[in-house]
Amino acid sequence: MPSNALFDPMFSTPAMTDAVGAEAWLRAMLRFEAALATAEGDNGLIPAEMATRVSDFCAQVKLDPARIGDAARAAANPGGPFVQALKEAAPDGIAGYIHRGATSQDVLDTAMVLVSRDALGVLGRNLDRLAAASAELAQKHRSTLILGRTLLQPAVPITFGLKAAGWLSATVDSRKALSRWLREDAALQFGGAAGTLASLGIDGFAVATALGEELELRVPATPWHTSRGRVLRLAAALVESAGVAGKVALDIVLLAQAEVAEVTEGGAPGAGRSSTMPQKRNPSAAVSVIAAARRASALLSLFSGSLLQEHERAAGAWQAEWPTLCDLFLLTDVAVSGMAGLLENLEVNDRRMEANLKAQGGLSMAEAVVAGLTRATNAGHARTIVEAAIARAAATGCSFREAILGDSEAVEAVGASALVASLEPANYLGSTNEFIDRALASWRERI
Amino acid sequence: MPSNALFDPMFSTPAMTDAVGAEAWLRAMLRFEAALATAEGDNGLIPAEMATRVSDFCAQVKLDPARIGDAARAAANPGGPFVQALKEAAPDGIAGYIHRGATSQDVLDTAMVLVSRDALGVLGRNLDRLAAASAELAQKHRSTLILGRTLLQPAVPITFGLKAAGWLSATVDSRKALSRWLREDAALQFGGAAGTLASLGIDGFAVATALGEELELRVPATPWHTSRGRVLRLAAALVESAGVAGKVALDIVLLAQAEVAEVTEGGAPGAGRSSTMPQKRNPSAAVSVIAAARRASALLSLFSGSLLQEHERAAGAWQAEWPTLCDLFLLTDVAVSGMAGLLENLEVNDRRMEANLKAQGGLSMAEAVVAGLTRATNAGHARTIVEAAIARAAATGCSFREAILGDSEAVEAVGASALVASLEPANYLGSTNEFIDRALASWRERI
Amino acid sequence: MPSNALFDPMFSTPAMTDAVGAEAWLRAMLRFEAALATAEGDNGLIPAEMATRVSDFCAQVKLDPARIGDAARAAANPGGPFVQALKEAAPDGIAGYIHRGATSQDVLDTAMVLVSRDALGVLGRNLDRLAAASAELAQKHRSTLILGRTLLQPAVPITFGLKAAGWLSATVDSRKALSRWLREDAALQFGGAAGTLASLGIDGFAVATALGEELELRVPATPWHTSRGRVLRLAAALVESAGVAGKVALDIVLLAQAEVAEVTEGGAPGAGRSSTMPQKRNPSAAVSVIAAARRASALLSLFSGSLLQEHERAAGAWQAEWPTLCDLFLLTDVAVSGMAGLLENLEVNDRRMEANLKAQGGLSMAEAVVAGLTRATNAGHARTIVEAAIARAAATGCSFREAILGDSEAVEAVGASALVASLEPANYLGSTNEFIDRALASWRERI
Amino acid sequence: MPSNALFDPMFSTPAMTDAVGAEAWLRAMLRFEAALATAEGDNGLIPAEMATRVSDFCAQVKLDPARIGDAARAAANPGGPFVQALKEAAPDGIAGYIHRGATSQDVLDTAMVLVSRDALGVLGRNLDRLAAASAELAQKHRSTLILGRTLLQPAVPITFGLKAAGWLSATVDSRKALSRWLREDAALQFGGAAGTLASLGIDGFAVATALGEELELRVPATPWHTSRGRVLRLAAALVESAGVAGKVALDIVLLAQAEVAEVTEGGAPGAGRSSTMPQKRNPSAAVSVIAAARRASALLSLFSGSLLQEHERAAGAWQAEWPTLCDLFLLTDVAVSGMAGLLENLEVNDRRMEANLKAQGGLSMAEAVVAGLTRATNAGHARTIVEAAIARAAATGCSFREAILGDSEAVEAVGASALVASLEPANYLGSTNEFIDRALASWRERI
Repeated sequence: MPSNALFDPMFSTPAMTDAVGAEAWLRAMLRFEAALATAEGDNGLIPAEMATRVSDFCAQVKLDPARIGDAARAAANPGGPFVQALKEAAPDGIAGYIHRGATSQDVLDTAMVLVSRDALGVLGRNLDRLAAASAELAQKHRSTLILGRTLLQPAVPITFGLKAAGWLSATVDSRKALSRWLREDAALQFGGAAGTLASLGIDGFAVATALGEELELRVPATPWHTSRGRVLRLAAALVESAGVAGKVALDIVLLAQAEVAEVTEGGAPGAGRSSTMPQKRNPSAAVSVIAAARRASALLSLFSGSLLQEHERAAGAWQAEWPTLCDLFLLTDVAVSGMAGLLENLEVNDRRMEANLKAQGGLSMAEAVVAGLTRATNAGHARTIVEAAIARAAATGCSFREAILGDSEAVEAVGASALVASLEPANYLGSTNEFIDRALASWRERI
Repeated sequence: MPSNALFDPMFSTPAMTDAVGAEAWLRAMLRFEAALATAEGDNGLIPAEMATRVSDFCAQVKLDPARIGDAARAAANPGGPFVQALKEAAPDGIAGYIHRGATSQDVLDTAMVLVSRDALGVLGRNLDRLAAASAELAQKHRSTLILGRTLLQPAVPITFGLKAAGWLSATVDSRKALSRWLREDAALQFGGAAGTLASLGIDGFAVATALGEELELRVPATPWHTSRGRVLRLAAALVESAGVAGKVALDIVLLAQAEVAEVTEGGAPGAGRSSTMPQKRNPSAAVSVIAAARRASALLSLFSGSLLQEHERAAGAWQAEWPTLCDLFLLTDVAVSGMAGLLENLEVNDRRMEANLKAQGGLSMAEAVVAGLTRATNAGHARTIVEAAIARAAATGCSFREAILGDSEAVEAVGASALVASLEPANYLGSTNEFIDRALASWRERI
Repeated sequence: MPSNALFDPMFSTPAMTDAVGAEAWLRAMLRFEAALATAEGDNGLIPAEMATRVSDFCAQVKLDPARIGDAARAAANPGGPFVQALKEAAPDGIAGYIHRGATSQDVLDTAMVLVSRDALGVLGRNLDRLAAASAELAQKHRSTLILGRTLLQPAVPITFGLKAAGWLSATVDSRKALSRWLREDAALQFGGAAGTLASLGIDGFAVATALGEELELRVPATPWHTSRGRVLRLAAALVESAGVAGKVALDIVLLAQAEVAEVTEGGAPGAGRSSTMPQKRNPSAAVSVIAAARRASALLSLFSGSLLQEHERAAGAWQAEWPTLCDLFLLTDVAVSGMAGLLENLEVNDRRMEANLKAQGGLSMAEAVVAGLTRATNAGHARTIVEAAIARAAATGCSFREAILGDSEAVEAVGASALVASLEPANYLGSTNEFIDRALASWRERI
Repeated sequence: MPSNALFDPMFSTPAMTDAVGAEAWLRAMLRFEAALATAEGDNGLIPAEMATRVSDFCAQVKLDPARIGDAARAAANPGGPFVQALKEAAPDGIAGYIHRGATSQDVLDTAMVLVSRDALGVLGRNLDRLAAASAELAQKHRSTLILGRTLLQPAVPITFGLKAAGWLSATVDSRKALSRWLREDAALQFGGAAGTLASLGIDGFAVATALGEELELRVPATPWHTSRGRVLRLAAALVESAGVAGKVALDIVLLAQAEVAEVTEGGAPGAGRSSTMPQKRNPSAAVSVIAAARRASALLSLFSGSLLQEHERAAGAWQAEWPTLCDLFLLTDVAVSGMAGLLENLEVNDRRMEANLKAQGGLSMAEAVVAGLTRATNAGHARTIVEAAIARAAATGCSFREAILGDSEAVEAVGASALVASLEPANYLGSTNEFIDRALASWRERI
């Protein structure tokens, strides 16, 4: 969409702006045409010399995207105008050897795949940064106690390292989904006017094969002019990456609440300051990540709705895809890179984590106490004892810890020291370390 | 989003690009600050002279949107950076009188409403063009027979004028929805840091009232920092306008099919040509309208999802709104103006409409024949006679017209001339003219 | 969709299940057919006696929805099968006077509007409950201090009453949007096979008018078989209502966090208990409201995507509307009624609200202190003094309150008692009461 | 959602209604509990005898879904109520050995995966039917000429077999995406109260491993309570399947237009009849498929929006997933099975396909003629000659075929017989057969 200098920096990164910008698309389209001429030269469809000349020309020609974009308005796509501009710019004698057998959707869709491959390179690096930052937190805070929270209510204790391991796992999974797309779905589009490659006679498929090799793209079973599953799969994987970043950001926003205060965004001075309230330190980076992730998510329905395309080329659904995919790459990249930057500079307040846990007065250990009592009595009775202690604490204003330690039945059942031990969060972490190790392992494997 | 010169012309108009661009937002934000100073001056909160100086300054200052946008990245919104830049640029002594009592969301949300009001002006003119073009077709083709088509199958005859009257009705309705928003929902945002206007003491509401008058905006019951119904209502009305254009475009694409050939896009030579197939004349303008309408529709879920905003200012859901609204205005305007241009130049092939109707061999009149026979016999029997004639036609290869005219029972029941008359589409238009007149009347009323 | 007894109670209410269920649709369809016969009788198109007999028959006939639904599968809509079943069930001689001039979309769309009108009655009552509960909280807690929170960070103090007034405002607005739909958009659908009412000859429009009166529905300019703006408008208004409930629920979930603990869900004992953690008290009602609001929001894109309908009846987009609208009513009603019930039983912990505010150590009053100092010195200097005190507090571990009261420059500038007063939240509520009163007034007006 | 007997048959299949119904969920939940007891018995956490008793009990107990669903309303999920009901129904002494160490999200999420696995079995069979029907058409109509159509305009000729091969390819791809999900993403959920498996002490991970084996599910790196990528991936794959069916249905609707008439829906008599127009034969099955695919597509945004889940269990986003996933399975299955049934009974009118191609008067061969002339002259000149012939045909009313055969320059350039041959569609099919063969091969491989 036309740029808006006030909003763009918050919703895009320079690297991705380049990767999905008009110049990048032009380069990809030129790469298609060059590779096509080469493939046709190799298969004897055009003279070898002409193939070389076309290829050389495509490598150095400068086309004006604005002029092509302008013509694209009348044509309802920039593919035709691009070919026309390319032919017009071509030196004598080679125009006729350009774009042979291809249709505008061939060059545009293949360019979309090539652009996506490069853009996934940019995004992948930022996902790797996010994974690395999560991994570092997972390791460093392996034993940093923090309240587990379910439905935003205190649950049992976990460690901040485990929380980060969960972020890491999700990041690695979304990275895998994108790699899988590159490996399995990044395919050549080449079918000619209606998917038969008719104008290449009996050589169409040989050219397709050579073209796929030249561009290092898979050759699909059939042209996919109106079979857009692979585009939806890419969009869904991008939205997943943005959503992973958004989930981490949401956790940060919640942990940064003044009443929780377990983390603070680090980063440059000045960030997150209010225009009217001098004391405020806003989780601005997290907020931007969430905003970008929400915008990314909203775009997904464009692609699912676009699966229904007419006959051999769609009248509207296809044309809506290219620019939306660019927007989706931009929003995903800003979410992921923003989240990586945030985690790299996160200030973790482990004392406050411990304090918040303690402030529960042992309530978060109620499950552990029940478990201990269950071994001594039985589950039903254990629960009864604990619930009575909780009620007593609520009624008298003492902590659950005090209430249960003062409960003679409980003390007798398991012994005082065991009861105290069962109130200790660090003793109640179960498989935390194993999960952290597994997340780290799946990340190292990924690298 | 960052511009892409290849795609932008197809998905935006220059007028709307200006109307929702960074400069327009800055102007609106400056207008807010000027009006705020005026309102505060009028209410004795700042000296009258200072109010005038701030107001004058806001009227002529030039701020750099890129610099503000850059700072907005760290702040997670451009409101604070705008205020800071404005104060820095302010001449001696007036900085302290700028933005008093307001928060960044006040200036941004009010600017969003002001920008929307102007953008609705642009869009409204294009909707008017679309309505006028529909109205002209409705009048001109009031009696031009065309097949009614339901589920894309032949139904009874209608006129092309009625079809256009349906487009007109929908356009007028969507225009009304936008006007209603302007009238009822275009509201001032002014609540200060958390919606109390506390820093203005007991004068807050008086300032709000004056500010609303100054900006010609409604003063809502309470600030709407996290009550975003009015934003969703605007987005829904925009999507409706885009969708109305999209519906017309879809009809055009279907009517332009070679096998139907009842309309052709007019317009400049060169438009709609294929890069490989010289004979093709694509419905390019309609395709672009559909693509834009689909993209607009996909954006709506951002706004419905954004209704759930936290406390007194949201952490992400709000920030996702402004840029998405700009995109929505751009996409809606290009859909509506593209559709207006298309209809203004539409080539209508009334002969082909008639021919396609006749090609049904009277089948589209079967209902009329049933009706005629029903008056003479009864509904069940009438339907039996007609179904038998249809079956006979299918079996023998003759037309239904021939089959029913050769049916002695039918001829006897209503008489030959009445039977022939009942096969005449022009005799079977019912309330077509009334509906056309009503659509035209609602449009004229609107003007 | 087919029911799932495990999930249905959480995502629907009995009253709305009835209001949009198969029996309600059948009743509405029968009402259409009865009114149509009456209108046609009144206009001399069918004998008055037959009109009465049809009307009486429709009032008492019992049709089997399952059988019609089964036939609807082959027909791709239940309209035709309904008419057929109705005619088959009709006593001798009246079948031929049923459904005259109408098409299946006429009866289905009009039934959709009639069902919606009744369903809006159910929903409206729940919105009224939500408004009343909000209003009560707004009045009762008019002066109950609570931290205002922006981006989930402490901002300036507000009152819990103001927060509730914001909920009230949004509820009243969404109620108005639904009433407006009923008033302006609840329209008859009546066009016959392709929108011409051809089979009624010259009397079509007179019948339409009488039918509209009979059903108390507006008669639109033209049939709206493929102009679906009014359906989108209804869906958007429903989603808005669900979203308003969702916003309140989100606030409740956040306020109910253990670290905040300013509200607790009341309600029946047992609600919100964890299966493993005896101490937990989950905000279950709020969680259910949010889940329903999210599901409602997701459905909106169906309606915006459905604006593009083909010719005189759509092949798929229309058919997707009816069941989705039913789901949307169910989800909206459960969200709104759930939220009303929650607010009616909300336990408000005003002491904790005050404590959390105090825990800020005066930081939430920094803006007020700046304002006070600004009057004595100037804005820039005032901010400098306050920022220094904030920094000092952070460095030494004292509160901002202590730091600023110990700042001789500040004390001298405004005087000790004024400085103390400027730290008092109750002194810094600005227009809070006016906003509460305005919200209450708009609600009373609504009633 | 609560059932609606009028609409359900059109939007669900009996087999899928069973597969995702309340009983199926209960069975899956019981299977989880049985397997958990077994895994805990095997790891010495509970006595072997108790493990067997729990497992046996879970295999035969009958629980009332309605009672659990009712309790789920207060709990905001049916997991806890299920466990409670199960324990209450348990014979003496075993209740305490049920659900040990698990949380309600463990049993619900794992049940969701188990239910999905079974539901994918149902869906997979219907996708296989759709693939087989497409494959049969691809083979049978390998050489049946039909116009290729791009932007709904005539392009070059293709064969109906190639069109079907495109459908087949897309179906196979979507089938693979679902299989991949089963293989890589169908994972156990097992983390206990907050993802640490704390109550199982040091044995948690061993139990998880045994449980995964017992249920034949992958054990993920970490619990995925709030990492919902795998749910989005499933939803996206389902929507893709529905969309593939929708794309085929859209092609059928377009081919079935009276003016095109190349296919007709077969199937039971009575299907597709109009209630008012006896002659109509509607593409009802295709319409139903499109309606279901549209509804499925709209649901996807629920899952992308649900990626942002709070901390260790979400307050609303998670709870919205289960019922929506059920709806998505139902809609996908009805779309896919409906499309399979349609294709299995499709009536193909190959004569009309040929006639429509011929009706282009050779225009669809213009590209081929250009190609032939290019070899003799050059591309630019060839195009000039052909464009002149097209213009001449348009001006004089003759066909392009006649115009070009009457063009002496064209005849001289390539020779009359070659020119005639270049007008023959069957000579201009390029790689059609190779593409068909590749699609068939990828399908056979799949099997």
